[in-house]
Amino acid sequence: MGRIARALWAALLLALLVPATGRAGDVLFQYSTFDALQAGLYEGSMTLQSLKFQGDFGLGFLNGLDGELTLLEGQAYSAGAGGKVSIPADATRFSFATVSFFLTDRTVELGRIESLAALNRAVRRGLPSANLCYAIRIDGNFSRVETRAFPRQKPPYKPLAEAVGQQVVTEFSGPGTLVGCFLPEFSEGMSMPGFHWHFLTKDRRGGGHVLDLALDPATARVDTLHDLTVRLPDDRAFDRLDLSGKRAGNGPSGKETPVTKQ
Amino acid sequence: MGRIARALWAALLLALLVPATGRAGDVLFQYSTFDALQAGLYEGSMTLQSLKFQGDFGLGFLNGLDGELTLLEGQAYSAGAGGKVSIPADATRFSFATVSFFLTDRTVELGRIESLAALNRAVRRGLPSANLCYAIRIDGNFSRVETRAFPRQKPPYKPLAEAVGQQVVTEFSGPGTLVGCFLPEFSEGMSMPGFHWHFLTKDRRGGGHVLDLALDPATARVDTLHDLTVRLPDDRAFDRLDLSGKRAGNGPSGKETPVTKQ
Repeated sequence: MGRIARALWAALLLALLVPATGRAGDVLFQYSTFDALQAGLYEGSMTLQSLKFQGDFGLGFLNGLDGELTLLEGQAYSAGAGGKVSIPADATRFSFATVSFFLTDRTVELGRIESLAALNRAVRRGLPSANLCYAIRIDGNFSRVETRAFPRQKPPYKPLAEAVGQQVVTEFSGPGTLVGCFLPEFSEGMSMPGFHWHFLTKDRRGGGHVLDLALDPATARVDTLHDLTVRLPDDRAFDRLDLSGKRAGNGPSGKETPVTKQ
Repeated sequence: MGRIARALWAALLLALLVPATGRAGDVLFQYSTFDALQAGLYEGSMTLQSLKFQGDFGLGFLNGLDGELTLLEGQAYSAGAGGKVSIPADATRFSFATVSFFLTDRTVELGRIESLAALNRAVRRGLPSANLCYAIRIDGNFSRVETRAFPRQKPPYKPLAEAVGQQVVTEFSGPGTLVGCFLPEFSEGMSMPGFHWHFLTKDRRGGGHVLDLALDPATARVDTLHDLTVRLPDDRAFDRLDLSGKRAGNGPSGKETPVTKQ
């Protein structure tokens, strides 16, 4: 399908959806569950092409942790180990993602930020409630951004807490964009509560999952999202996962066991 | 909008949605969170008319706990204290609901069932995974069904664990229908994990939330649902709820405080 045909189709769909539900653009779409990802389910069956029907903005992981995925203005970017960004093909599959159609509905003015924790506190103060979902975009000038990404993992996959030992940390500075989300605490078990940020340099050639940063004064653009859609993978490996007992508060190291794609 | 116009509109929307997502009819739609309901948020702002765009089958609570809500074949039924069922107006609002467009994709043959726990075990054995969502319909002959419903609650509302003291239990026997759902354990915090059942007599004049039952051999029709959409209320009372700390495993009596609609 051509670019124009796709745009026309999306516009028609949107025109039909808005009067029927009044909520188009107000959905945070998530593929798989964060507990499944943490348990080592690194192979999803959904393609980026399908994901783009669910949003133009967000973050995730490609299959085998082979790339920290960022979706920005409808374009997918994949940051590999070392921080180099490539453009993944539409047929690329991913293991986890949260995306939405980004529409700014409030802004939060940020002073000079010296750490990731300080950024999270400053943005949190500007959010109307901790019980909703948010997509957040920040364009700014960074004196420092520390990102991580993984080399491609091979099955049998280790749980995320163990794979983290293989992450490669890269440091950037200069202008760029943060693509982030916030999910409420009660989404734990299904989603990843709190803030998560991916970074792209202004030329979109570098980036990754943000571990720490320092940022000049900037504006955070916030999209408040009232619908959270979790798509549970249609996949025997997911069906068989033991995802019970996660709520005992043991965190990532709780009941995780390595998972191999069947 | 007339009945025919609405049906045509729904058919058009479905025709457009199916090719775009391939998932129409595979969504469990939930309004509000179960933790918010348990905390005493008994007033929602969504109408039954809007809910019917999200499903034709499911269960919930009307505002003020004034009626155990059952949606069956697109018709809403409200069971009041004493088990008498009435047809709520389309403009009626509700505090919590889980609904879907019911399409049987597997059946489970049940032998003679002597209790609710036995029913849950028997249906569970027929489900392909505990990690997915299901809508379940059972038409059968009941030697006993014990249901509950509440008298209308008045603000300031008590948490559900306290309001339960006011529930009125009714016993039915004879032919009828169970409208049920199953949600995975990891949905706790947002949803109500496990099985939940509402009962309607065959003449649709009696029913309520099922506390216990005995059932002649019957067939359970199951609709497996891969998408769970949770709509967080667009409501200041919801925004202000303290829904943190629910995951400490304290259950309903945890951190709940009465909530008054602002």
